[in-house]
Amino acid sequence: MSNKAVTKSLEVMFRQVNTVIYKRGRSVLTGMQVSTLQFNALLTLREFGTLTMGELCKYLFIACSTATDLVDRLEKVGFVERLRDHKDRRVVRVNLLPKGEEVVNSVIMERQVFLGEVLEEYSDQERADLHRVLELLAARIEKIDSTLPCKDEWIKTIKIKI
Amino acid sequence: MSNKAVTKSLEVMFRQVNTVIYKRGRSVLTGMQVSTLQFNALLTLREFGTLTMGELCKYLFIACSTATDLVDRLEKVGFVERLRDHKDRRVVRVNLLPKGEEVVNSVIMERQVFLGEVLEEYSDQERADLHRVLELLAARIEKIDSTLPCKDEWIKTIKIKI
Repeated sequence: MSNKAVTKSLEVMFRQVNTVIYKRGRSVLTGMQVSTLQFNALLTLREFGTLTMGELCKYLFIACSTATDLVDRLEKVGFVERLRDHKDRRVVRVNLLPKGEEVVNSVIMERQVFLGEVLEEYSDQERADLHRVLELLAARIEKIDSTLPCKDEWIKTIKIKI
Repeated sequence: MSNKAVTKSLEVMFRQVNTVIYKRGRSVLTGMQVSTLQFNALLTLREFGTLTMGELCKYLFIACSTATDLVDRLEKVGFVERLRDHKDRRVVRVNLLPKGEEVVNSVIMERQVFLGEVLEEYSDQERADLHRVLELLAARIEKIDSTLPCKDEWIKTIKIKI
């Protein structure tokens, strides 16, 4: 297999694997009526802590009008709260509340449950191989990501996504 | 390492790896002013072919009012077209146009370029190991996904996501 063919094949396999893990995690949100965008907002706040509205728009690649609606809805169900800056009252910060954090945790738990089922199919040796290979990949991906220029340098700062 | 610890660690590593591959692919869209939701719509249409507006909402987990705005914008820039059903004029279908398909292809290409750079770090043996381990994982994930009940059975039908 040529290097190019391996690259193509890996890209497709990552997509397949991630699609299944993603949708398995996502499935717990259906009953909660949480949209993908709302979920990504909760995940972002969990990772970065309290963010201004402007920062939140940037991280989610959305217009600020969309973010206002989004935060309205998340505030209404008690997942986040808006905080006004003491020094500059024009600045609004969004803070994740425990109920919102529970939503993120439930998705991560469901992903773990699913992966646990998959690992049941593995022998001890295969499981060790999988872990070793992925550990190496994660480290090399991080290395190349930090050195290779990106078409949008701001995007390089994004650290989390499910 | 206990099975539970391996599962937890794998879940985190998949998230790390996917975040980087995702944002690298995503970076080519910044100049094109394509939002994540718009991109997911294009990807869905590429995978499933022409869809009715109702189907598109369902696949994207969005309200139909959001889908109307979305398709309006995609139609305006020539990425998709709306088609009326000949038999039932109330049914509107959305069809991907070549310009929209190019957008999806450019993201996939960028993901391949990035993975190609990562593979440069690999020896032949390591590359073969990575491919073998991921192939096995993709097959087992598909097997478990098709047999294990899902919290939302409809979600199981989703086949593509970047």
